Amino acid sequence: MAADRAARPRPPLVDHHCHGVVRGELDSAAFEAYLTESDAPAAPGTSYFDTQLGFAVRRWCPPLLGLAPHCPPERYLARRRELGAAEATRRLLRAAGVTEFLVDTGLPGDLTSPQELADAAGGAAREIVRLEHLAERVADTSRTADSFLAALGDAVRAAARTAAGFKSVAGYRYGLDLDPTPPAPAPLRAAADRWLAARASGDPAAARVADPVLLRHLLWSAAHTALPLQLHTGFGDPDLRLDRCDPLLLTDFIRAVRPTGCALILLHGYPYHRGAAYLAAVFPHVYADVGLALTHTGARAGAVLAEVLEVAPFGKVLFSTDAYGLPELYVVGARLFQEALDGLLARWVRDGAWGAADAERVAALVAADNARRVYCLNNTITGDT
Amino acid sequence: MAADRAARPRPPLVDHHCHGVVRGELDSAAFEAYLTESDAPAAPGTSYFDTQLGFAVRRWCPPLLGLAPHCPPERYLARRRELGAAEATRRLLRAAGVTEFLVDTGLPGDLTSPQELADAAGGAAREIVRLEHLAERVADTSRTADSFLAALGDAVRAAARTAAGFKSVAGYRYGLDLDPTPPAPAPLRAAADRWLAARASGDPAAARVADPVLLRHLLWSAAHTALPLQLHTGFGDPDLRLDRCDPLLLTDFIRAVRPTGCALILLHGYPYHRGAAYLAAVFPHVYADVGLALTHTGARAGAVLAEVLEVAPFGKVLFSTDAYGLPELYVVGARLFQEALDGLLARWVRDGAWGAADAERVAALVAADNARRVYCLNNTITGDT
Amino acid sequence: MAADRAARPRPPLVDHHCHGVVRGELDSAAFEAYLTESDAPAAPGTSYFDTQLGFAVRRWCPPLLGLAPHCPPERYLARRRELGAAEATRRLLRAAGVTEFLVDTGLPGDLTSPQELADAAGGAAREIVRLEHLAERVADTSRTADSFLAALGDAVRAAARTAAGFKSVAGYRYGLDLDPTPPAPAPLRAAADRWLAARASGDPAAARVADPVLLRHLLWSAAHTALPLQLHTGFGDPDLRLDRCDPLLLTDFIRAVRPTGCALILLHGYPYHRGAAYLAAVFPHVYADVGLALTHTGARAGAVLAEVLEVAPFGKVLFSTDAYGLPELYVVGARLFQEALDGLLARWVRDGAWGAADAERVAALVAADNARRVYCLNNTITGDT
Repeated sequence: MAADRAARPRPPLVDHHCHGVVRGELDSAAFEAYLTESDAPAAPGTSYFDTQLGFAVRRWCPPLLGLAPHCPPERYLARRRELGAAEATRRLLRAAGVTEFLVDTGLPGDLTSPQELADAAGGAAREIVRLEHLAERVADTSRTADSFLAALGDAVRAAARTAAGFKSVAGYRYGLDLDPTPPAPAPLRAAADRWLAARASGDPAAARVADPVLLRHLLWSAAHTALPLQLHTGFGDPDLRLDRCDPLLLTDFIRAVRPTGCALILLHGYPYHRGAAYLAAVFPHVYADVGLALTHTGARAGAVLAEVLEVAPFGKVLFSTDAYGLPELYVVGARLFQEALDGLLARWVRDGAWGAADAERVAALVAADNARRVYCLNNTITGDT
Repeated sequence: MAADRAARPRPPLVDHHCHGVVRGELDSAAFEAYLTESDAPAAPGTSYFDTQLGFAVRRWCPPLLGLAPHCPPERYLARRRELGAAEATRRLLRAAGVTEFLVDTGLPGDLTSPQELADAAGGAAREIVRLEHLAERVADTSRTADSFLAALGDAVRAAARTAAGFKSVAGYRYGLDLDPTPPAPAPLRAAADRWLAARASGDPAAARVADPVLLRHLLWSAAHTALPLQLHTGFGDPDLRLDRCDPLLLTDFIRAVRPTGCALILLHGYPYHRGAAYLAAVFPHVYADVGLALTHTGARAGAVLAEVLEVAPFGKVLFSTDAYGLPELYVVGARLFQEALDGLLARWVRDGAWGAADAERVAALVAADNARRVYCLNNTITGDT
Repeated sequence: MAADRAARPRPPLVDHHCHGVVRGELDSAAFEAYLTESDAPAAPGTSYFDTQLGFAVRRWCPPLLGLAPHCPPERYLARRRELGAAEATRRLLRAAGVTEFLVDTGLPGDLTSPQELADAAGGAAREIVRLEHLAERVADTSRTADSFLAALGDAVRAAARTAAGFKSVAGYRYGLDLDPTPPAPAPLRAAADRWLAARASGDPAAARVADPVLLRHLLWSAAHTALPLQLHTGFGDPDLRLDRCDPLLLTDFIRAVRPTGCALILLHGYPYHRGAAYLAAVFPHVYADVGLALTHTGARAGAVLAEVLEVAPFGKVLFSTDAYGLPELYVVGARLFQEALDGLLARWVRDGAWGAADAERVAALVAADNARRVYCLNNTITGDT
């Protein structure tokens, strides 16, 4: 079956969790910084190119720019500059094979918009609205807690009319060990008051929303729109406490939010991806993502994906790249996923554990069909193909 | 060695943790419900047949009823109805290769008794008494805390005369983060009082014992009989908080109970099975089960079993199916275990890491001999062979 | 590449975390006790030889003493006695291929000194000073908290002049869920007072330092020397609560200590090694060890090492044996590591995921070069070669 799959075109990919790419040129240090979740340069004598992700970039991307796989990073970056960021981005994105992008627009930097990304890739895009970013923009123009909360409610409802879904980074800002219930009006107003006052006093730490009461309110506001809600869990940058991003900490919230009908998509998960898969197995409204966990583990992507596919029902697992900044990460995310999934399914079919038709069907589910069903993808912005 | 093993009959299996199967016919929805730990129908557009367990059932069971592997679920269920539940059950159970069953009788439903199971399988059976179920039956006829506690003590001692062991689902009812010590008389009596009063008031939530003081008392009552005590850990239905079923939370209880001489068998464990294996490695009276974790991970059973066999001494690992409701789960549990273990041992022998004679010996230990030693299996009820 | 590597000599190994070996003869029970982290004899009917570690010893060591691999333990031990402990130790250590040893000297028993170990192995050795052991020795001759703290500061500074690094077993003594900050003077003096008073009263439990305030003070004292600091995490003997040795519990300490410039090496980690690798990925001053986790998992060492190499940068992973008591553990630790790493790299190169030159480079980094860089190894004690 592996030979069969390699010989025919792969199914299109729906990337349900990704970000814009940098518009301008990147020097070597800036490029390397996008290969890690760290906020610091690599330790003396080491390099972030010496990682599974770095090696995966050097495997898949040089051939797309006319170089040999595994050529030295400097060689690759020189060729990239020679082509120019725009042309390199176009070549890389078109090669990734993603036809639909759900773009989280809440990250900083001079990044492409969803429309630009879709145009460059020859695909289509929809927006995922990051709740904390939305709250911070509303707070920028709010004077009182009441007006903030009212404007926030309006903003969430307005976003729900066009967005494909919401995303929460409460795991980063506080941890997933939040009280599971919606906050009552009085403590909510008090928390909003405190936050606006801290912002007004010029406290730079207060620019970002980190109060657990406000974070819970954002989660419940999104849940009540019944759009899918993405939740950061597991692996991320050193802002977070990884052990407080264990998706199992969400269990009581998952139970509480179930009656709203809101689908919850647990992003990343690694190294708690088996726990995320368990939640997807036992709660009908919970789904598991396999983005960042594959991109950052490179040659080990198949092993990690296999762990997700232990207890997660196959209708509950969604492909993504979680690409951010570098178009290379779209290539790597897509190729690692396809190679990993093809490898697993080929082995299971060969061993007789799975039927070949089931394997084909599951491949299409995880690559695209599950995301289409969960996000009701039918009115995407079509890019310039 | 793989070829050798395939060519000769496999050693008999002792299934130290299983349940009865449904006596009557099952429609498609009822059958599917036994393929998941979820308490809800599958999400719209998905099916619990699309899981590793569902695929494993479709691999192993259709040939036993005269169909091709991986035939569609509807086809299989139609054939099953055609044969009738009793005949299908008989065929499936006889094919599973289990010769001794230790049956947890504490689950609801119109299920076969241990004797009926043994008869249908052509094997032998012993009972495992579920402590919480025992306490609830005693509470049904108790008026006061003192009479309840006295009758409970009598019931535990009476059960110990015939049962092969006890089982606790304290992980489900509360979590494994219990105070490790036996409760003192006064708080114990107070907890019993509260529970009986809640039951008498008709509170339906009080039917089940969930008070941590009472749960601890049950654990210690069982420990003092010195019969083996099975403890639910890890993976289970959405009643539980998976992170509160990490077997490592039992560490202090394990230390405290050590002087009683009671053997503790940590069931399931997944995804914390490496932690369970660690406990089996460092505490002489602790054992690790590999039941549910293999059944529900299907094509990945070998990978999961390998993780258990990293640090667990080979004299401390016990096979089970954790089958419940469907005779198919006996087939799947047994086949997945045998195939997984054979595959691992064959590879390790081929690579020179293990000697062939050691591999044969370890296979027999895990399949049957460890269970026979731990549960002192010599007076099992012989079924109708 | 596997063939290439097998055909040429392997690179030398720097063992950055190990201990002395027993000087005298060992009977069978004493030998077996070194094969486990348990503090108790194996359960009735079981043996610690029936473990991955036991099988690995029987694979690699008998041929070095002129016997067939996997010969029975009794045969091996008889041959060992025939040769005498000194000669067996010499043969085994010379075969292990370790050229530099960083020896933790804080363990009890009649063990070889670093110099003796280096002499027997034909290598070189440096000392790693165990902080808790140092504090206990200082306490033995201290009368007051002030004199204890002053003498401890002197002892740490003196040790830093010759040692290659420090080691903390705070995970054993308390857990890694320590307050991350350095203790203030008043509570520190109070804790020292309490400890010295308990020791003076003859309380045998007080011989060892276990007060979290004192443990934190030791960590910070070591950090201020800027020598590398090894921290026990994960797998160990039943003194510890494994779940309180999750390296992620160190996250806030890791952040707090970052400005000191002290490198932190997370030892063992198993089964939390993916979390340790994550910390090594996002914090420049954090490194991950792969010692005990490989030795104790035997045939599974490749699978465990692969998990460490998922997100840990390759410049951040360090080989060790964690050998203790038995020279056999040096052989097993070294062979398992080399075989595991060779196997992984060969597969990744064959699959095209890695370039061959990168694989060679990473092999040298993990085997020796990372340790040389982190510990500034240039003035080791040269043994008698």
